[in-house]
Amino acid sequence: MQKCKVEVCFTPALYDGFRNDSAIVVIADILRATPAICTAFMNGVKRIIPVATLKEAMDYKNKGYLVAAERDGIVRDFADFGNSPFNFTPDRVKDKEIVYSTTNGTNTIMMAAHSYKVLIGAYLNHQALVDYILKEQHDLLILCAGWKQKFNLEDTLFAGALAEAVLQNDRFYTICDSTYASIDLWNEANKNMTQYLEKVAHRHRLKKNGLDDVIEYCHTFNLTDKIPVLQSFYLVSL
Amino acid sequence: MQKCKVEVCFTPALYDGFRNDSAIVVIADILRATPAICTAFMNGVKRIIPVATLKEAMDYKNKGYLVAAERDGIVRDFADFGNSPFNFTPDRVKDKEIVYSTTNGTNTIMMAAHSYKVLIGAYLNHQALVDYILKEQHDLLILCAGWKQKFNLEDTLFAGALAEAVLQNDRFYTICDSTYASIDLWNEANKNMTQYLEKVAHRHRLKKNGLDDVIEYCHTFNLTDKIPVLQSFYLVSL
Repeated sequence: MQKCKVEVCFTPALYDGFRNDSAIVVIADILRATPAICTAFMNGVKRIIPVATLKEAMDYKNKGYLVAAERDGIVRDFADFGNSPFNFTPDRVKDKEIVYSTTNGTNTIMMAAHSYKVLIGAYLNHQALVDYILKEQHDLLILCAGWKQKFNLEDTLFAGALAEAVLQNDRFYTICDSTYASIDLWNEANKNMTQYLEKVAHRHRLKKNGLDDVIEYCHTFNLTDKIPVLQSFYLVSL
Repeated sequence: MQKCKVEVCFTPALYDGFRNDSAIVVIADILRATPAICTAFMNGVKRIIPVATLKEAMDYKNKGYLVAAERDGIVRDFADFGNSPFNFTPDRVKDKEIVYSTTNGTNTIMMAAHSYKVLIGAYLNHQALVDYILKEQHDLLILCAGWKQKFNLEDTLFAGALAEAVLQNDRFYTICDSTYASIDLWNEANKNMTQYLEKVAHRHRLKKNGLDDVIEYCHTFNLTDKIPVLQSFYLVSL
């Protein structure tokens, strides 16, 4: 039986070296886009349309769509929601269609559209992801959204947690230095996650803007078994 | 007093986000280019001309220069040396001028040429680097050569060792996630470096080609106080 490889790509800027059309790609943007998307599906959203630019988001708004749009953590004036998972409550999202644009996350989702599957990953749906990935016979690429093309710790830690869980199964292997690094960082951080997150740069950006109330929530395991998946230009529930 | 920041760039592909004209840039290509260069200076080489392409290296060879050139760890037919530090013995390099081209390292050196200083870093000259950096009032950027634009562990561990030592001094600070990650990985690896290096992808590449005899040497601290520095188009001793 052919084994499936596990790789971690630290930022979209490094994506060209990891392109793999037959892989399941899991997008991670842990503070806060991918937990927000998972929360929306947990709370019954019908579909999410990820768009790369604020211009596109605004065009959709003018056509009457509900729009979530932020840059650098700050909700945009024209938008109905920002990027906090707490925005996506059942009363606001159930059976709705939402357009969504964020600083790093939504560009990254569309970048991997050529792959076998593009899934949205967070601690919130960690076990559901592991179960799905183990059921499939495909390589796994965890693609971190990073911060403005740079490496960030919070996405990498999640990548380590997911890679480690999948690699428990001997049908999966890795020879990827980024994957080993992610797993080691995850194990170091996991000794005391709250303390470890103190040094995460993006935590400080959020704190400065009073947006760090979601950090604990964004690091909570297995609140939902919903896995958002890219289907042509939309995210739907798998 | 203004504090100096410490940053780590994991691969040349991410360099644009870290450009800093006033920084001291330390290039790390631990298996094997930067230890080889440090060894050459330790053994009395006069200067090294780093060139990006094999074509340039060949042109120099035709003009009568001594040439070190490898790709993927394998010495090129036309060259006098490959990339093993053990090639650069005193009898071969003392008072000589050598042209040098490697898979990742030499491109990376020239990429940072606009900076305040470009230094060649290895465990071999670790303490000399720390002493020099602490004496200067400049930001520090550790630029890992990586492997074909990807992150690699061996360069990152060295970056962590150097960043940690410099950050002991309170005139230096970091808010850079890559720097924190490097330091944590270094501390994890340093518990048992030989064992940790087992998982480094490039170690396996070298082993396959019978070129892994240098690994212990390339991870030896403080054999020399020579610091190679880029001066216009040449590396000389600082």
